Formats: sequence, structure tokens, C-alpha cells
Amino acid sequence: MGSGEKKYFQNYMPGNVCFGCGALNDEGLHVKSYWEGNESVCHWRAEGQYHGWPGLMNGGIMATLIDCHCMGTAMAHACREEGRELGSLPEYRYATGTLHVKYLKPTPNKYPVELRATVLQAKGRKTVLRCVFSCQGTQTAEAEVVGIRVFDSSQKDAGGAFRP
Amino acid sequence: MGSGEKKYFQNYMPGNVCFGCGALNDEGLHVKSYWEGNESVCHWRAEGQYHGWPGLMNGGIMATLIDCHCMGTAMAHACREEGRELGSLPEYRYATGTLHVKYLKPTPNKYPVELRATVLQAKGRKTVLRCVFSCQGTQTAEAEVVGIRVFDSSQKDAGGAFRP
Repeated sequence: MGSGEKKYFQNYMPGNVCFGCGALNDEGLHVKSYWEGNESVCHWRAEGQYHGWPGLMNGGIMATLIDCHCMGTAMAHACREEGRELGSLPEYRYATGTLHVKYLKPTPNKYPVELRATVLQAKGRKTVLRCVFSCQGTQTAEAEVVGIRVFDSSQKDAGGAFRP
Repeated sequence: MGSGEKKYFQNYMPGNVCFGCGALNDEGLHVKSYWEGNESVCHWRAEGQYHGWPGLMNGGIMATLIDCHCMGTAMAHACREEGRELGSLPEYRYATGTLHVKYLKPTPNKYPVELRATVLQAKGRKTVLRCVFSCQGTQTAEAEVVGIRVFDSSQKDAGGAFRP
């Protein structure tokens, strides 16, 4: 990737209206993920309303960030595995099969948070990821997420209900 | 409870600013939960921005609803077990230890959803809950959630970082 502009996975998801990561959702969280070696990274900073307790980030919003960061990573990983660029065809999109989050410590709301995900396993349409959530250098949550490729633009009946 | 006004758990959480269930969060989801026998029930209807795909509810928002519904239920269950009314002292509040969600089917965004939670186990500060998520009579997700009592107004150092 060199020293240039970061290639955010979510910039290669046309029609994405998702609350968590859709560029087309004006009121969304706008998760942006990029590769740093074999880890995908997301930095995010909360707006005021996304607290759970005064000064602490809401656990559901944390789950939303983890979810979207991992689904983007599953897509980007599939492109990598196939030796092709983000944005090339076919277009893949993942939806969450399972989301397991373990909350370890309160997460302050006023500092940026960092999510780092790695792919543990990818086989066929299924990708298993691990995600570490931290704030100010302290890990506050960890997650394991299973993504399922629900949209593949090369398939005639691509997507079913899941259609960007 | 009879035929009167529903006793929503979240009406007995003074100072609650939570994005998911805080009455004091103007931009929040306002989860409201009540007892129906041994099940707690929440009905909720999405606003437009909370989709994941066009017409489908965002999985992170679903996780947020599940999380808050279960933490409210853990609090209400503790009151029940102690044979006292919601709103009586001491005041308890729960935070999420683990959140495991399994997404079974796409959840339409345009209909109300229903969450039903039951307490599987409650011991000391820990409560384990199961939650079924459905829409139009079809189950679309299920979850197991562990809540930890992090605030107890009878304790001198109640709450630490978790303080309503």
C-alpha cells in the first residue's frame, strides 16, 4: 500500500446503506477499515449519544463497530486470497452469522477506539475472524465473528434478501 | 400485573443516558421491556437509518436491542427474586459481560420486532439470559447474554466507572 492514501474497504462497497459502515448512510457510524499487514484496522471516535453510561461507550455500538469492521475484513480478505484488487469483480458482500463479544473493561467514550481484526479461517462462503477492541492502548473487549458471503455478483441469484 | 399500565423496567433506571435504553438519551433507541409471566418482552420499531441492507435491520442495532433488553431484565429479575418492587432500594444496574448473537434470517426493517428474554441462571452478581428475536412471527436471531451487576446503591463504592 506504500505511503499513499489508505484503501478503506468500505470505499469499495457500492450502494452500502448500512448504519455501521455505509458511506450512503448520513446518520451512520461510518466504520472505515484498512489493512496493516495481516491485520485490519479501524479507528473510530464516538459522538455524544453513543454512550452506555456517562463517559462510557455503549456496548451495542461497540458490537456494531466490531460487526461491520469484521464483515468488511472478510470481503477484503476474499479479494486478497483471490489475488485481486478491492473493487474488482465479482463483488462480494458478507453478513454476520454469529457475533460473540466479551467485554473486559469499561471503554471511555471521549477517546478514539481502535479495532484490530485477523482472519482465523476462511473456507467457501464462511470466514471466521477475531477482533480486539482497545482504547488508549488498553484492550477493553474482544470478539469472534463469523461472516457468511451472502452476495456474489457473479451468481445469477446473488444475494436474495441481501442485495446492496 | 393486571390490565393496567405496563411497568417498563427502564422507567426505574434514574439517570439512564444509555444509547440503547436510556430515557435521558434523546437520540437513543429507547428500548422498553416488561414482564409477561417469566419472559420479558420488548417491542421496537426501527427508524430508517438503522438498516444494514436496504429493507433489512442492522445486525449491530439488533445486538444493541438484545443487550439492553437483557440488562434491564437482569435488574428486574433481581428485584423479583428479592421480593421487591421495581424502583425500590437498593438500586441495581447491570453491564454486559458477554454477548453471543446468532443471526438466523434477514430481519425486515419495516415491521416491529419482538424480543423475548428469560433468565437461565442468576447467582450473585451474575445473570445469564437467553433472548429470542423475531419479526412478524418468524424468529430471526437468538442470543445468550451474561450480565454483571456493576452498580448496587447499597455499596459504598458502588459502580466505579459504572455510575448512572
